[in-house]
Amino acid sequence: MLENVRIVMVETTHPGNIGAAARAMKTMGMSDLRLIQPRDYPSVEATARASGAGDVLEAAQVCETLDEALEGATLVIGTSARQRRIPWPCLTPRQLAAQLSHEPDDTRIAVLFGREDRGLTNDELRRCNLHVSVPTNPEYGVLNVASAVQLISYELRMALLGDDFDLKESRSRREAMPLPEMFWDEPLASNEAVAGFLDHLEKVMAQSGFLNPQQPGQVMTRMRRLFMRARPDKMEMSILRGVLVALERKMPSNDGK
Amino acid sequence: MLENVRIVMVETTHPGNIGAAARAMKTMGMSDLRLIQPRDYPSVEATARASGAGDVLEAAQVCETLDEALEGATLVIGTSARQRRIPWPCLTPRQLAAQLSHEPDDTRIAVLFGREDRGLTNDELRRCNLHVSVPTNPEYGVLNVASAVQLISYELRMALLGDDFDLKESRSRREAMPLPEMFWDEPLASNEAVAGFLDHLEKVMAQSGFLNPQQPGQVMTRMRRLFMRARPDKMEMSILRGVLVALERKMPSNDGK
Repeated sequence: MLENVRIVMVETTHPGNIGAAARAMKTMGMSDLRLIQPRDYPSVEATARASGAGDVLEAAQVCETLDEALEGATLVIGTSARQRRIPWPCLTPRQLAAQLSHEPDDTRIAVLFGREDRGLTNDELRRCNLHVSVPTNPEYGVLNVASAVQLISYELRMALLGDDFDLKESRSRREAMPLPEMFWDEPLASNEAVAGFLDHLEKVMAQSGFLNPQQPGQVMTRMRRLFMRARPDKMEMSILRGVLVALERKMPSNDGK
Repeated sequence: MLENVRIVMVETTHPGNIGAAARAMKTMGMSDLRLIQPRDYPSVEATARASGAGDVLEAAQVCETLDEALEGATLVIGTSARQRRIPWPCLTPRQLAAQLSHEPDDTRIAVLFGREDRGLTNDELRRCNLHVSVPTNPEYGVLNVASAVQLISYELRMALLGDDFDLKESRSRREAMPLPEMFWDEPLASNEAVAGFLDHLEKVMAQSGFLNPQQPGQVMTRMRRLFMRARPDKMEMSILRGVLVALERKMPSNDGK
């Protein structure tokens, strides 16, 4: 159904935003882009920012009017920063995505994105069946237009395809790493404390002869994964550090001291 | 808890991406940015792309080493395009956000974002407790680094604050606009068909004397909202069009014909 979703950018000023939007679309598996009266397009900057999504950009259709851009669409969604005088049915991207996952397969969806400085006009918003508004920081909610395309496209992809890529694998990993909600008696160790411990462990393992520093293989990676996953607390780190110090004292050092 | 989330950008090449990341953070209510050896920073381009998030950019701390950037962090998350040789606990952004909503309030989170061309090194990834990977188009999954910051920040905001802004209002709206899953006997009308009908309706309403075209007020906006919300099917449109044509025939036209 992602192939039935069209992105319509209205009077975009900066060509970089068009390129970035094409890239955002392609990362989420979408390709139908229409541009209504872009200020400066085609443009080297759009192509540069599109990166590997040059094909989406090249196939983008430049339109004169909203009617042309909406041709054939049966569900038109307008992105809007905030509610206008007369409230319109307005969803968050997640609510929108949840609704679209119930749409029949032949619904042809168009999502409108407005100008960088003032969004969509009231006339344009009134052409929409629904509005969608990203819940942002009330003190600064001004999303870049390509970022808005990225967020909406991402939510649509999540709703239509799910985020359970690799789910079986990630389930078995989750079972190996439960992070239960429970009372804990010690604060967590900081990242640098764990890193310091792991360096110390590596040194002691080398000193023990178990680890050949010239051919370490994957041993330390596996040790790191174990301890990073476990997220040791401060007390555990201090105990393990004490063990390492004690072991070092017991082992003959390399210089024979 | 959003104030406990730090974004760490590692050896970013393009200053525009740093500015765009600062803006993305601020739209989601985050402000703690650290930059490890940025290639070209400070920079006019970073400032331009930051837009209204200049304060986040100015407060960003430039670091020499990963240790400096991770100082005090108790949960380090690495963003990664795909799984490395030895799999690490790897979540989708949504799974990550769900986990973080169960973290104690004093957890200090750092999220690492790698270089534009090759991401994080294996050494950097091994400093992380968890990895997070955005589920992208398998044929082109190369997210821009600032887009990745936007998506992760958005998911964290959704998980920590919820997306139920305006929920009461939007609930009452939803009740006014049920979109049930059910068999429907007619295809939906296209957007242009509904727009054409609404123009026609406006004309007939003016002709009827109900609507003063010089002082239309909010009447047509409310009519538009009604029909856009209802998403008429083709048959309904054709009936209503027929009614309008019939009404026009019955009314004396303005030129007295």
